[in-house]
Amino acid sequence: MSSIFGKNLKLSIFGESHGPAIGVVLDGLPSGILLDSEKISQEMARRRPSKGPHSTKRQESDLVEILSGVHRGRTTGTPLCAMIKNRDAHSVDYGDIERLARPGHADYSGFVRYKGFNDIRGGGHFSGRLTAPLVFAGAVAQHILDEQDITIGSHIDTIQDMKDIGFDKAGVTREQLLALRTMDIPVNDLSCREAYLEIIEEARMATDSVGGIIETAVVGLPPGLGSPIFNNVEANLSAMLFSIPAVKGIEFGEGFGITTLRGSQANDAFYMDSETIKTQTNNNGGINGGITNGMPVVFRVAIKPTSSIALEQDTVDIRTMENAKLKVRGRHDACIVPRAVPVIEAATAFVLCDMLIGQFGLEAFCEGSHEP
Amino acid sequence: MSSIFGKNLKLSIFGESHGPAIGVVLDGLPSGILLDSEKISQEMARRRPSKGPHSTKRQESDLVEILSGVHRGRTTGTPLCAMIKNRDAHSVDYGDIERLARPGHADYSGFVRYKGFNDIRGGGHFSGRLTAPLVFAGAVAQHILDEQDITIGSHIDTIQDMKDIGFDKAGVTREQLLALRTMDIPVNDLSCREAYLEIIEEARMATDSVGGIIETAVVGLPPGLGSPIFNNVEANLSAMLFSIPAVKGIEFGEGFGITTLRGSQANDAFYMDSETIKTQTNNNGGINGGITNGMPVVFRVAIKPTSSIALEQDTVDIRTMENAKLKVRGRHDACIVPRAVPVIEAATAFVLCDMLIGQFGLEAFCEGSHEP
Amino acid sequence: MSSIFGKNLKLSIFGESHGPAIGVVLDGLPSGILLDSEKISQEMARRRPSKGPHSTKRQESDLVEILSGVHRGRTTGTPLCAMIKNRDAHSVDYGDIERLARPGHADYSGFVRYKGFNDIRGGGHFSGRLTAPLVFAGAVAQHILDEQDITIGSHIDTIQDMKDIGFDKAGVTREQLLALRTMDIPVNDLSCREAYLEIIEEARMATDSVGGIIETAVVGLPPGLGSPIFNNVEANLSAMLFSIPAVKGIEFGEGFGITTLRGSQANDAFYMDSETIKTQTNNNGGINGGITNGMPVVFRVAIKPTSSIALEQDTVDIRTMENAKLKVRGRHDACIVPRAVPVIEAATAFVLCDMLIGQFGLEAFCEGSHEP
Amino acid sequence: MSSIFGKNLKLSIFGESHGPAIGVVLDGLPSGILLDSEKISQEMARRRPSKGPHSTKRQESDLVEILSGVHRGRTTGTPLCAMIKNRDAHSVDYGDIERLARPGHADYSGFVRYKGFNDIRGGGHFSGRLTAPLVFAGAVAQHILDEQDITIGSHIDTIQDMKDIGFDKAGVTREQLLALRTMDIPVNDLSCREAYLEIIEEARMATDSVGGIIETAVVGLPPGLGSPIFNNVEANLSAMLFSIPAVKGIEFGEGFGITTLRGSQANDAFYMDSETIKTQTNNNGGINGGITNGMPVVFRVAIKPTSSIALEQDTVDIRTMENAKLKVRGRHDACIVPRAVPVIEAATAFVLCDMLIGQFGLEAFCEGSHEP
Repeated sequence: MSSIFGKNLKLSIFGESHGPAIGVVLDGLPSGILLDSEKISQEMARRRPSKGPHSTKRQESDLVEILSGVHRGRTTGTPLCAMIKNRDAHSVDYGDIERLARPGHADYSGFVRYKGFNDIRGGGHFSGRLTAPLVFAGAVAQHILDEQDITIGSHIDTIQDMKDIGFDKAGVTREQLLALRTMDIPVNDLSCREAYLEIIEEARMATDSVGGIIETAVVGLPPGLGSPIFNNVEANLSAMLFSIPAVKGIEFGEGFGITTLRGSQANDAFYMDSETIKTQTNNNGGINGGITNGMPVVFRVAIKPTSSIALEQDTVDIRTMENAKLKVRGRHDACIVPRAVPVIEAATAFVLCDMLIGQFGLEAFCEGSHEP
Repeated sequence: MSSIFGKNLKLSIFGESHGPAIGVVLDGLPSGILLDSEKISQEMARRRPSKGPHSTKRQESDLVEILSGVHRGRTTGTPLCAMIKNRDAHSVDYGDIERLARPGHADYSGFVRYKGFNDIRGGGHFSGRLTAPLVFAGAVAQHILDEQDITIGSHIDTIQDMKDIGFDKAGVTREQLLALRTMDIPVNDLSCREAYLEIIEEARMATDSVGGIIETAVVGLPPGLGSPIFNNVEANLSAMLFSIPAVKGIEFGEGFGITTLRGSQANDAFYMDSETIKTQTNNNGGINGGITNGMPVVFRVAIKPTSSIALEQDTVDIRTMENAKLKVRGRHDACIVPRAVPVIEAATAFVLCDMLIGQFGLEAFCEGSHEP
Repeated sequence: MSSIFGKNLKLSIFGESHGPAIGVVLDGLPSGILLDSEKISQEMARRRPSKGPHSTKRQESDLVEILSGVHRGRTTGTPLCAMIKNRDAHSVDYGDIERLARPGHADYSGFVRYKGFNDIRGGGHFSGRLTAPLVFAGAVAQHILDEQDITIGSHIDTIQDMKDIGFDKAGVTREQLLALRTMDIPVNDLSCREAYLEIIEEARMATDSVGGIIETAVVGLPPGLGSPIFNNVEANLSAMLFSIPAVKGIEFGEGFGITTLRGSQANDAFYMDSETIKTQTNNNGGINGGITNGMPVVFRVAIKPTSSIALEQDTVDIRTMENAKLKVRGRHDACIVPRAVPVIEAATAFVLCDMLIGQFGLEAFCEGSHEP
Repeated sequence: MSSIFGKNLKLSIFGESHGPAIGVVLDGLPSGILLDSEKISQEMARRRPSKGPHSTKRQESDLVEILSGVHRGRTTGTPLCAMIKNRDAHSVDYGDIERLARPGHADYSGFVRYKGFNDIRGGGHFSGRLTAPLVFAGAVAQHILDEQDITIGSHIDTIQDMKDIGFDKAGVTREQLLALRTMDIPVNDLSCREAYLEIIEEARMATDSVGGIIETAVVGLPPGLGSPIFNNVEANLSAMLFSIPAVKGIEFGEGFGITTLRGSQANDAFYMDSETIKTQTNNNGGINGGITNGMPVVFRVAIKPTSSIALEQDTVDIRTMENAKLKVRGRHDACIVPRAVPVIEAATAFVLCDMLIGQFGLEAFCEGSHEP
């Protein structure tokens, strides 16, 4: 019953798409963490609608105001509240929606959940816009991971039926991941970029939408992170990642594909690489028994096509309980996959940070002592 | 850091494969729930190794002893502890394992996590045997769901590269699900049973193993269950399901497949079915914005091939840090997918019960008042 | 490690005394709750420094801005964020404090906890000002309790060594409690008001401070609320009440006094009052085994004298680690007990609301269904 | 709704007084902790009814069986389940209780809470016997604290109206606390022992009971432990301590007495004691702003007189809802204060251990690495 997530590091997300503001409270941060506002702006910009054809025309400035928890540019250790005011809300675009449930959206399920009292404008608290505070939280977490040489990166593995080259799961490097973070359409095979943009443009022209799959890798995690049974790395990551709108599937390592292998093929054989234990393959995505084994953590996330499309759809009027037709108006991405990339990375950074703090303690991540 | 799961209804799992006992504490149960020991035995039997070719030769009697929380056959409302003694532990079979990390297992990651102090015999706390208490917990939860006419059932969708007919996601019925629960190898296309057993037998003859995919459906859930962002149905189910050993992927509705559709195909159009709002398709698996929409909740779970195989594998000796060869001895299933079915159903029952209690209150599920 | 409280209804408090804003996120509220802004203002006003002699000269306007979770005057059910901007912060008053630890304050313990990175101006996150968002949260909770005919009220039982007449624990009424809520210095014996004000004025003249004891009663709670062992009413209330600055003791019913009675005197004998089970006395404060028994819940809370006094005190410079002398400047209450009354009532309202929602379910408190 | 306590280190208590067994699951323990069975037995023995006049005649052998989480005498890091079988349950003594609510007990409130389904024999899950698993948990926690040179000890400050000499709050030493732990009736003024025993014997002769106050001190805690607002040391300790049956009040440092002081007297002035910051007095009980300041943590807990007395009392029959008379039969302590001492110390040890693990990390408390 909660928009609060995390065990030792907690985030509490608030806001509705067309209300006064959205934001996040981060509780349990180590003190003394430098808030690198440039890096934060960069991450926020990655999530923001671009000027490209795949993206909504809505202008979201996403200016983050820090209300608490930062003093002289560093975290105080007490709760950090970051607020983003909603400036460019065209509520008039959403008139029908209060009555006509958009297929693929939470309009109907949310109506039942909240007895019709929830703010349905722009999706309200269900809006993809609520991922902006998550990206902020992830940027703060990312700074803590950076200090531990832990790096997260992603590529867009597929758009509709077009596929990029997947990660070399056992060999993916920090440099590769950092390079991907600088691309607007991050891909391993650079020729995919144009192909993806074409598919998206075609969908947009058809007033339709497309989805895709994002593959994410994390390098630099120590072995031994996580716990057996519950609170393991896969459970915690998936709980968070399924909290991102439009995510419909998650798989670690070879994921569903591993079910077509025999055990002798699926098992990742251990070997000594000088002083370090490694695995020859990485079909298990760097996780054994829910706990990291020191290899890259690799997972794929399925993002469904944007639900809001201008094509006419069948639906019902949830007030009168009658069949109806709906064309969703307003500004919507023909494909949200590129904008979902920084959200998934932020979510991943947050979960890993929470788990590291839980296992190694808050004090381990405090940055020395403040000088007088 | 925790083998405790749940928010209002909590389960705390304890035990190691070769220790004195395994078990579970259920905290937050409604009072007055009849403990149907026959149904519980049935569920426990479904998880137990069968006499078929696909299953371990280990005899697990799995006799459940109730230590607390039940009085005169009904739950008291105070914590219910159920214990299963380990009777048939052949520790001698596992001699090498304390030194040689089994590929695909938690031996190495667990060694690092616990600094070598964890009980590694038979996988210790990481053992698949720890799913027995979960099945018990699920059987208790299932009774509560039964009272609300909520039914869970599954079929084995694939074994290696062989595939059953999938659920009709919008049309799957209670009767179909109940029938599947009575099968040793639950399938929609009955001819798959033999095909599956053959694949498993082949793997067994080759001292190798195979995996597969389980598709699960839940019918009878009210619309409006769950919360936006965190603690939604997908997040909570996935957090629990990734706690089951060998699970490497989860997808809801069309899951990864939905990424190949356009929005106009992926969206499930609403319509009035007499007084009830339904969707024509169910690509979203009964969940919009993380909240149930009244359609069947449908998801698929990927189960990797059993890691413990008798074929020789490369590995390392985690005490001496040297390369080594390993043949895993002991009794192991050539395919754990059939035994995973009741575990996934139990896990699902538990999560849904927790969410229902959280949203509708403990009191709503108490069975009337005890007569003097 | 957390400024988040609650199980089903959660509050997350953020802010520092001299930062941009303080506030609270309320997560898990029922939807459709009317936000009575007048009642909220009243409660906020009760906590605000008055013009009386006992109170700080600081002008706190405490204007609450709702950032989310309210639509058309009612709760949406999604997180409610309320922000109070800090307008009247005279940071210059607090110059020394960054070096000289104020005795009785968290300056030194907080310095160690946060390695010197916390915002120490005005007490930062430790400031009594952080009780303003708690009062707001309590006002919202109070509305839910009002609908259930549950009433909370308090009187100031002592100031320094002057004592009011205590509640008739078994007979205290709703009317009595409501009347107390309208008084600036709530007392049962009206003559105490002047006596209290005199003691406070004397302390103020001496640039010193005084404390006191608040006795609070709750009538209208159903019997059977709470759980045995942990999460009982006493445990949950005390965990919250010790979160209010300056609270150093809590006792339920006769509290410490009950230790001087024999069991035959201490036990509250049950009797039938028409159809209802009541107790003749209420030495246990309406709670048996941690669970309400239907009698008024009564407890007393000790509030220490304001730590910030202008009298010279011995202390240390926490940067140079040398002995020093300190006179705390700035505007401080000579006695915070009157202002603590609404804070304790708000905290109580929140805890009870959380427990009621947990036991009876969120749905039980939703206010019908929104009309089209 | 929970018999689970703790954030990083969790305990889950189960069992009813007259059921098959009681016990505890400890989740989140560091691995490699030596389980000193002799020390554990000692602590269990301190709680067990003695042969003295103040104690129940019931023979509780309290033999702890470890079901999981210990391997080769050390914690594995995975959940530790300890079970105590109920051997000496004379259910026949409690016949009336199922109908006649014992004044001062949870019989009536528990009946409403659980709709009459709870096991009321011997108090069921509400029984003081459920403190035995807590003492076990505390003994394990105590071992972790010992390694950090943190020591907990208590004296019985009052029995009825007889008072011992209180702790020198600023000067109490480890040696003093360790000596108190060896006494059956721990007191600072040795002459109090006889006086206390006389008062108890008098009450016993009158088939009545008495209560008292326990003062506990903790030395060796580092400064900076705890968090502001919620999850502070006072809040966490009180939440746990109010979970012990018969506790009706808690105060830290001077507690209620501090309300009679002026601020200039109440504030504990800081000074440099060589390299260490100390306070001259310790009226705040070693806690400022909810966070330890390095001084001894000192608190007092009020224990009410045993509710179960053989004197005739008025009550009601909760099945027929009629007035009735009750003489509680069975074996009951005339005073439980001496037996409550190790329970309070165990509870304190658990809470501090949980907080230390949360702040400094699990890894900080793992005892090196296991040798091959």
